[in-house]
Amino acid sequence: MLHGMKVGNYSIRWAMVGGGSGSQIGYIHRSAALRDNNFALVAGAFDIDPQRGKEFGKELGVDGERCYPDYQTMIREEAKREDGIQAVSIATPNSTHFEIAKAALKAGLHIVCEKPLTFRSGEADELVALAEEKDLICGMTFGYAGHQLICQGRKMIKEGALGKIRMIRMCFAHSGYCTAIDKDNPSQKWRMDIKSAGPSFVIADAGIHALYLAEAMVGGLQIEEVLCSNQSFVEGRTLEDNSEVLIKFNDGMRGVLWSSAVNTGSTHDLRIRIIGEKASLEWWDEEPNFIRFEEIGKPKCLYGRGSSYLEPEALAEDRIGGGHAVGLFDAWANIYRRFAIAMHAKLDGIPLPEGDFWYPDIYVGRSFVRFVEVCVKSVQEGEVWTKL
Amino acid sequence: MLHGMKVGNYSIRWAMVGGGSGSQIGYIHRSAALRDNNFALVAGAFDIDPQRGKEFGKELGVDGERCYPDYQTMIREEAKREDGIQAVSIATPNSTHFEIAKAALKAGLHIVCEKPLTFRSGEADELVALAEEKDLICGMTFGYAGHQLICQGRKMIKEGALGKIRMIRMCFAHSGYCTAIDKDNPSQKWRMDIKSAGPSFVIADAGIHALYLAEAMVGGLQIEEVLCSNQSFVEGRTLEDNSEVLIKFNDGMRGVLWSSAVNTGSTHDLRIRIIGEKASLEWWDEEPNFIRFEEIGKPKCLYGRGSSYLEPEALAEDRIGGGHAVGLFDAWANIYRRFAIAMHAKLDGIPLPEGDFWYPDIYVGRSFVRFVEVCVKSVQEGEVWTKL
Amino acid sequence: MLHGMKVGNYSIRWAMVGGGSGSQIGYIHRSAALRDNNFALVAGAFDIDPQRGKEFGKELGVDGERCYPDYQTMIREEAKREDGIQAVSIATPNSTHFEIAKAALKAGLHIVCEKPLTFRSGEADELVALAEEKDLICGMTFGYAGHQLICQGRKMIKEGALGKIRMIRMCFAHSGYCTAIDKDNPSQKWRMDIKSAGPSFVIADAGIHALYLAEAMVGGLQIEEVLCSNQSFVEGRTLEDNSEVLIKFNDGMRGVLWSSAVNTGSTHDLRIRIIGEKASLEWWDEEPNFIRFEEIGKPKCLYGRGSSYLEPEALAEDRIGGGHAVGLFDAWANIYRRFAIAMHAKLDGIPLPEGDFWYPDIYVGRSFVRFVEVCVKSVQEGEVWTKL
Amino acid sequence: MLHGMKVGNYSIRWAMVGGGSGSQIGYIHRSAALRDNNFALVAGAFDIDPQRGKEFGKELGVDGERCYPDYQTMIREEAKREDGIQAVSIATPNSTHFEIAKAALKAGLHIVCEKPLTFRSGEADELVALAEEKDLICGMTFGYAGHQLICQGRKMIKEGALGKIRMIRMCFAHSGYCTAIDKDNPSQKWRMDIKSAGPSFVIADAGIHALYLAEAMVGGLQIEEVLCSNQSFVEGRTLEDNSEVLIKFNDGMRGVLWSSAVNTGSTHDLRIRIIGEKASLEWWDEEPNFIRFEEIGKPKCLYGRGSSYLEPEALAEDRIGGGHAVGLFDAWANIYRRFAIAMHAKLDGIPLPEGDFWYPDIYVGRSFVRFVEVCVKSVQEGEVWTKL
Repeated sequence: MLHGMKVGNYSIRWAMVGGGSGSQIGYIHRSAALRDNNFALVAGAFDIDPQRGKEFGKELGVDGERCYPDYQTMIREEAKREDGIQAVSIATPNSTHFEIAKAALKAGLHIVCEKPLTFRSGEADELVALAEEKDLICGMTFGYAGHQLICQGRKMIKEGALGKIRMIRMCFAHSGYCTAIDKDNPSQKWRMDIKSAGPSFVIADAGIHALYLAEAMVGGLQIEEVLCSNQSFVEGRTLEDNSEVLIKFNDGMRGVLWSSAVNTGSTHDLRIRIIGEKASLEWWDEEPNFIRFEEIGKPKCLYGRGSSYLEPEALAEDRIGGGHAVGLFDAWANIYRRFAIAMHAKLDGIPLPEGDFWYPDIYVGRSFVRFVEVCVKSVQEGEVWTKL
Repeated sequence: MLHGMKVGNYSIRWAMVGGGSGSQIGYIHRSAALRDNNFALVAGAFDIDPQRGKEFGKELGVDGERCYPDYQTMIREEAKREDGIQAVSIATPNSTHFEIAKAALKAGLHIVCEKPLTFRSGEADELVALAEEKDLICGMTFGYAGHQLICQGRKMIKEGALGKIRMIRMCFAHSGYCTAIDKDNPSQKWRMDIKSAGPSFVIADAGIHALYLAEAMVGGLQIEEVLCSNQSFVEGRTLEDNSEVLIKFNDGMRGVLWSSAVNTGSTHDLRIRIIGEKASLEWWDEEPNFIRFEEIGKPKCLYGRGSSYLEPEALAEDRIGGGHAVGLFDAWANIYRRFAIAMHAKLDGIPLPEGDFWYPDIYVGRSFVRFVEVCVKSVQEGEVWTKL
Repeated sequence: MLHGMKVGNYSIRWAMVGGGSGSQIGYIHRSAALRDNNFALVAGAFDIDPQRGKEFGKELGVDGERCYPDYQTMIREEAKREDGIQAVSIATPNSTHFEIAKAALKAGLHIVCEKPLTFRSGEADELVALAEEKDLICGMTFGYAGHQLICQGRKMIKEGALGKIRMIRMCFAHSGYCTAIDKDNPSQKWRMDIKSAGPSFVIADAGIHALYLAEAMVGGLQIEEVLCSNQSFVEGRTLEDNSEVLIKFNDGMRGVLWSSAVNTGSTHDLRIRIIGEKASLEWWDEEPNFIRFEEIGKPKCLYGRGSSYLEPEALAEDRIGGGHAVGLFDAWANIYRRFAIAMHAKLDGIPLPEGDFWYPDIYVGRSFVRFVEVCVKSVQEGEVWTKL
Repeated sequence: MLHGMKVGNYSIRWAMVGGGSGSQIGYIHRSAALRDNNFALVAGAFDIDPQRGKEFGKELGVDGERCYPDYQTMIREEAKREDGIQAVSIATPNSTHFEIAKAALKAGLHIVCEKPLTFRSGEADELVALAEEKDLICGMTFGYAGHQLICQGRKMIKEGALGKIRMIRMCFAHSGYCTAIDKDNPSQKWRMDIKSAGPSFVIADAGIHALYLAEAMVGGLQIEEVLCSNQSFVEGRTLEDNSEVLIKFNDGMRGVLWSSAVNTGSTHDLRIRIIGEKASLEWWDEEPNFIRFEEIGKPKCLYGRGSSYLEPEALAEDRIGGGHAVGLFDAWANIYRRFAIAMHAKLDGIPLPEGDFWYPDIYVGRSFVRFVEVCVKSVQEGEVWTKL
C-alpha cells in the first residue's frame, strides 16, 4: 500500500513544456507527477505566449525566473544551474514532440512524452538511438496502464491462467467527434490536419491506448502484419474518424482494434478482451475497478481492485483499500511513479525493484509510430494485409 | 397484449421433418409453433430411424399412421388426405434443407426452414422461384428477431431517431467450440465438415443471426462488398471457428461482424450496435429485456420491454406486462405467430395486418446463402474486398 | 434437458376457474400447464359472464358443453363424467380463492391456486386439513421459483457453500402504483380494498414472492417474529403500498423484506440476497439467467443458467442450452411440470423422483396467510416485534 | 473545469494530528488537501511515537522543528509563530476527536475532523458553540459527497425533477468484518470497543456516509424518529456489526438505512436511492461515474460524469473531460477544495461563491452524533420508534 512516500531520497527536479493555462492534459501530468512528491515542478515553458506562461507557472509556485518563453531557452538556461532540471514532460502539439524530445535528450534530460512520440519512424529511431546513447529514460503516458488490474491481468497471463493466447479484441471508441465540432474550432481543428496531428487521427489518438493495454498484459507481443480499413464519417475530414485494424501478432495470435471518435452516444469505451485457449480476461475503463476472468467450464469471475486474492503486483500500487473506486488520476500517478523509479535508477544508481518492473517506454513510443505508419500504408494500398 | 388466441379460425395442420427424440432445435420449433394453437402437430418424419420417429411422434400425440419413415413418404401420403398437412418445418441436417424444402414447396406446402436455406445460391434461387410460382410462405427461424425490443429498434430507426445510419457492429461470439469437442463426437463433427455443414461453420451458424438483427432493424439494408478474415484456432478444423467480416452496405453504411465459437468463457454474446449520426441503439441477447438508446448530448436511455412509452409495434406481441423477463422461447413464439399470419393470408385470404408486418422470409434465407458465399470467396482470394 | 415429453403416460384432465378473456394471469397458467402436454384443458368456468366464458373456452378448443357458467356447476357436472377433470387451477379474485379451493378439494380434485390461498389462517388450516384428508395436491404459483438458478442456490446452500446463513435480504419493489391509477379504475381498485384483496396489498401481492424465494433456497426456514412498518404513499389508499418487514427466522437468522408498488421508475426488482458466514448468493429477476456467488477472499462469481458446472438439479429442467435467455414463462412451465409430477404420483402411484423434489405447496400457501396476518398485527400494535 | 489553480492567493498553512506512518486515512487527507496547493503541510503531530512522527513529517517535507510530539505542543508552539498554522486536520482515534477539536478551535484554528465529531451530543453542542463564537470552519470528511454526480442529484431534486420525495433507501454494507478479524488484532480491536470507538460501530463508521449522501442531495432533510434493529453476527462483539434503521424524516418522507460490516462477499456497496412521486435517483459508489434517473413513463436514464447535459454545478468541479473514470481521491479533493474556499472566506474575507455552496460542516457532524445516540436508545428500549 502506498502512503505518499517518495521513491527516492529527493524529488526529481522537473519541468513541463506546454500544458499551460486551461490545458487539461497539462493538469493530468502535474497531478500525477506531484502526487507523492516524486517530482518537484521547478521550471517550465508552459505556453506559446511567454507572459501567460510565466503567470501560469508562478501560480503553480514556480520561480518566475524559471518560467521560460520557449523550450530552447529553458533547456539552455537550466543547464547552467547547479539545481537545474533533471526531467521534462512534453505536452505540446503533436508536431513538436520530436524536436523537443530530441533537444531534451541531447541536453541529458530524462523525458516524459505525450503520444505520438514522432510522426515518422525514422525520427523515432533517432530518438531511440539518442536515448540509448545518453542512457536516458523516456516515458510515454499511456496512463490507464497504471491501473492495478492491468498488473493483475499481466501476471495472470504470465502464469498461464489463459493458456496460449488466441485473440485480442481492443477498442477505444468514443463519441467525441460525431459532429463537425472540429470544422471551425481551432482548438480541435488541428486534430484532423495531417500537418499538426500526424498521419492518423483516431488510431494514433485513441486506438493505441487500447493497443498498449494489450502490450502491457501480453508478454512479448509483436505486430507482424495489419489490414486497416478507415472511414471519415463526418464530411470534410481528411484524417480518419473511424478505423478497423485486423492484426496478425507473433505466434499466430490475432487482434482486432476498433478506433473511433464517432461511436455516437458512447461514453468512452476503452476496452480490451484477451482470449486464450483456457480463459479470457476483459477490462473496461468505464468500470475500471473490476477485471473479468472467464474460464472454460467455470463461473465467470470478477476480480476487484484491492482484494486480498489479487497478485502482489496488483496490490503493490494501491493507495486505498479495496472497495473504493479509483480512476484515471490514480492510474496516471502510478505510471509517473514508475517513471520516477526508472529515473532514480539512472540518476542515483538505485537498483530497479526486483521482479517485474515495467512502464511505457521509448520502444513503446516507437512501436506505435511504426504501427500507425503501416496502418496508413495498408489503407493506401487498398486496405490489404501489409507487413510491418 | 397476446393471451393465446389463434390468429386464424383454426390451427394450421403442421408437420416436422427432423427434430426428433433428444433434439433441442426440434423442441424449440414445437414450443413456438404450438404455444398459442396457431399450429397443430398432425404429422411428422421426425427421425432417420423410422421406429424411433414413430414412437416419438406418438408421445407428442401424433397419430401413429402419420408418423412417417421419411419426408418423401410424408409428403406423398399427406397429399392424399383431405385433412393433410398445410405446412412443414424443416429441422434436419444442413445438407438436406434444399431437397426437403424443394419437395415441400413442389407439393404446395408452406415451409419453415432452419438456416441455412441451401449451400449454394443457385439452389436458393431455385427455391425462391418455386415459392413465388406456388405463392407459398417460407419462414426462416431467426428467432431472436421476434423479441419485442427488436421491433422497438426497427420503429425508432424508421422514424429517424438515429439519423442517418453510419455503422453497424454485430457479433455472435460464443464459446461452444473452444476445445476440440467436435473431433470425436459425431453429434458435433458434422458442423466442421463442409459436406454436411456447408462452406462455413461459424459465420453461417452464428454470425448471420446478428446480421439478421441488422436487417430486421435497418430498413432496406443491402450488402455491397465484404472483406472476410477467417481463422480455425482449434487444430484439425477445416471450417472456420472464428471470423471477422468487414461490410460495405448501401448508402455508405459500414458494418463489422464478428462470428466466433472460440470466444473462451463467453456466454453467448449475440449483440448489435447500430450507430447513427444522431444516436446509437444497442441490444444484447443476454439482457434482452432492455434496449439501449444513446443520443448525442443526452443521458443514455434504457428502454424496458412492456413499458408504456414503447412504440405500439413493440407492445403488440407482449404476452405479459413489463418488468417480467422473457427470452428465447417467447421470441420464437412471436416469429412462428408471424409465420401463421402470413400462411393464413395465403390459405384463407385473410388480409395481412395493416402497417409494418415482417418476418424472416425466403429472401432473407437466400441473402444469407449469398453472404456466406461471398465471405468464402473473399477469404479464398486472400482476404480482400469482394463484391456481392 | 427437457424436450417436451410428458411426465406421465397421459395428460392430466384440467380445468380453470377464472382466467378468461383478457386475463394476463390466465394466459400464464395456460402457457405453463399446456407447454409440454402434462395437462390438457378440457373444461372451465372461465368468466363471471357465462356466455363470454363459453366463447373463450371454445376458442381455446374446449368443448362448449364443458364451458360452465360457474365453478359449482363445473365441479358437479364434471364429477358425473368418466373423463371428468382431475385438476383445476384457480385464477379468480382473491376473495373467492377459499371457497373455490374448498369445493374443489371436497370434490377430490387436485388444485393449483393463485396467491393468497385464503384471507384468514383459520381458513387456510381448513384447506390444509381437507387436502391432507383427501390426499390431494395444492400447488401455489410462485412461478419464479421454477427458474433453474433457484435450484442452483438451493443446492449450494444445502451443501454448505454459504456456511451458516446470517441474513436474508428480500425485495419486490416495483413501480406499478406510483400514481392513483387504482382510484377510478375498477380493474385495479379491488387491489386496495380489504374486502376483495385481503388484509394487505403489497406484502401479499408482491413481497411474498421474494419471501418464497428465500424458503425455496434455504432449507427449514421458519419465521418466528416480525416487525412491520407500512405506508400508503398515494392518498386515499386504505391498504399499504409500501412496507418494510424485519424478520427473525429460526436459528438466529435475520431477514428484511421490502415490498413496494411505489418504487418510482423501478422495472420490477424482485431480488434476494442470502448472506452466510462464508459467502452470499444473489438473484434478481431482471437478469434471471445469472446467479451471483460472493465468497470471502475470492473473486465474485456469476453462475450462468445451463452451464456445465452447475448442479444436476439446476440443469434438470433446462429446455435449451446455456447462453440463451429464459424467463417468466419458462420458470412457470417448470413449476407446473412439478405440479404434474406430484399429481401423477397421487393419481397413478408413480413414485416421486428420487432426491430433492419440491414445489410451492399448500403449507407454503398457509404460511404466507399467517405471515400477512402477523405483519398486519405488528402494524396495528404500533410497528413492534410480534411473534408468529 | 479545474486545472489545479489555488482557490485563494496562497496555500493555507495546514497541519495534521494523527495520520502518520502507514495510515491510510492520513494519506487520503494529504492527497486531497495538497492536490491543488490549496493547503500547504507545514506542521504536524503525526504519531503517538514522537520520534516516528518526526521522521514521517520530514519525509513529507515538513520542517523537523514543526513535527511535534503531541497536539498540545503543536497548538501552543505554532501559535507563537507569525507563519503558524491556520488549519488542522484531525485523523486520530475516535475517542480523541472531541478534545483535539476543542483545543484547536480554542486556539483559533479552522479544523477538518474525521467522523465521529464526538461520542456524545453534549460534546458536539460544545464544539458547535465554540466554532460559532470563534467564527471558525469545521469540515467533516464525508468524501464521496464531493463526487460531481452528487451535485447533479442535489440540483435535480431542488428543481423538482423527482417531485415530492417519498422514500430514501440508503446502505453502506461492506464485508470487512465477516470474520473475527478484530478479535486479536489491535489495529482493528478498538473499533468494537465502546471506549475507543464510541457507542456504535457500523452505523457510525459506515452507515452515516450513506445518510450524508441523502442530506447532501435532499434539501432540508430532518430526522424526526428512528427505529433501530442491531445485530452482532460475529461472536464476542459488543458493538453492532449489522444494523437496520427505519427513519421518519420531515414532511412524511421515510428512510431505511442498512449499515453492515458483515455483508459477506460485498465489495463496498455504499448506495442511495431517492424515490420521489415523479422519479427516482440512484447512485452507487462502485460505479460512481453514472447516476441513474428513473422517471415514471420514461426510459431509465444514465447520466455520465462530465457530460454536457449535466447541471453547471455538476461540471464545476471536473478535473478531466467526461468518459474518464474518477473516484474516491478526486471526490475528496473536491471536498477539501470546498473547505479551502470556506476557510479563505473567513481568513481573507473573500466572498463565498454565488449560488449553492455547501460542504459537510459541524452541524452535519453534530447531527450524526445525535443520530447515533437515538439509534442506540431505540435499541436499548427494545427496537421501538424513538424520537430524536
